[in-house]
Amino acid sequence: MPPTTVTATAVPGLPEIRAGDDLAALIAARVTTGAEDVVVVAHKVISKAEGAVVPLAGVEPCALARTIATRQHRDPRQVQVILDQSSKLLRITDQVLICRTHHGFVCANAGVDASNAAHEDELIVLPADPDHSARRLRMGLPGTPAVIVTDSFGRAWRNGQADVAIGVAGLRPLEDWRGLQDSAGRALNATWIAVADQAASAADLVRGKDSREPVVLVRGLGRHVTAADGPGVQPLLRPAATDLFL
Amino acid sequence: MPPTTVTATAVPGLPEIRAGDDLAALIAARVTTGAEDVVVVAHKVISKAEGAVVPLAGVEPCALARTIATRQHRDPRQVQVILDQSSKLLRITDQVLICRTHHGFVCANAGVDASNAAHEDELIVLPADPDHSARRLRMGLPGTPAVIVTDSFGRAWRNGQADVAIGVAGLRPLEDWRGLQDSAGRALNATWIAVADQAASAADLVRGKDSREPVVLVRGLGRHVTAADGPGVQPLLRPAATDLFL
Repeated sequence: MPPTTVTATAVPGLPEIRAGDDLAALIAARVTTGAEDVVVVAHKVISKAEGAVVPLAGVEPCALARTIATRQHRDPRQVQVILDQSSKLLRITDQVLICRTHHGFVCANAGVDASNAAHEDELIVLPADPDHSARRLRMGLPGTPAVIVTDSFGRAWRNGQADVAIGVAGLRPLEDWRGLQDSAGRALNATWIAVADQAASAADLVRGKDSREPVVLVRGLGRHVTAADGPGVQPLLRPAATDLFL
Repeated sequence: MPPTTVTATAVPGLPEIRAGDDLAALIAARVTTGAEDVVVVAHKVISKAEGAVVPLAGVEPCALARTIATRQHRDPRQVQVILDQSSKLLRITDQVLICRTHHGFVCANAGVDASNAAHEDELIVLPADPDHSARRLRMGLPGTPAVIVTDSFGRAWRNGQADVAIGVAGLRPLEDWRGLQDSAGRALNATWIAVADQAASAADLVRGKDSREPVVLVRGLGRHVTAADGPGVQPLLRPAATDLFL
């Protein structure tokens, strides 16, 4: 048996993505995708292709947005966009808002980002339905590989950010070994593996400091890949009722 | 320029590790390590080699341990070992303790695990100083590659576990792009990358369901590798004073 290997390779030479671009065609022109591959895509290019951007000109900040903006020394319209993307505010500091988005993701500023926007007067937001985005991209790629849409999230208790899955198609997002036994016949305690999040993190490692290639091809995860689109990202989201830190 | 690629390969055929084993020699006999490589090691084999195990026979549970054990239907001595490893208890539920360990890691049950222990009457605990363990292993390996010692941690807000770094040697654990500009000349917002944690997660992807190879060789991260041992894991730990969820 050959050693188990997982390989992540950046897809080179993608152009700046604009609204309406056919991302599947742009990827397919640069890399060969097979049924056992996983295509990992930073959400920003999905958001841009889908037009998930908010022009600041049309945003009317509410009183709460103005109060937070004053405290955080930022544009109140930007804060309003963050509030619009959120179902709950977990923390408000002088620098950041920790939000639960309408999708159920907990992250800083509800995933709203000014950097890498095409224009200074617009903000990129998360795709409205990242699972749908992943499914659509999957169907457009030769071999219908698995697709993971990602974002870089900060973490409680740890510095720095790690990429996680925000949309999934054709991949079991979690591998559940609970109830199985270890080599000595005892129950395996801590064995519910966030495969899609770890694949997102692996893919981020190949992105260069200057280049930041948005699309990465991951090979060697065939045993997690499924013929059907599957449940998407939902299994990765801890239900609010059982969450200890919401 | 060739495409950027990161490869993670499991080191095959390691025997069951026992106290006093020379882990570096066992790894070096099975794989060729170079100065730009990163060797990722699940802490359990480090803990076993270092004898970081606690025999339950000598443990005297305190009143708090007994109370928690009754609520959680577990051995009060096991709870006592968890308390001994903790500097703070963040949450107590019917199933789990969320602890801050003396090292500063926040995780379930302070990293104490009964599964994979050599004997049913002992518990594996985290290495006393995982950075020291990483440095020692690094020095023992041909080419002095970078070393990351890992554990599988649950996450706030997300289901499943992802591997993170708990000890680091010869690797910049974080890549800091804050203050740099994106391709359009705007400040990059969210660009403080937890390289060591993402490498830990990438390595975990190659571990098989049955095999669970504890050592994984990661190639392609040369730009993060350093000649000196460096700061270890500390930069990855959010200081308590600025942590929003402690």
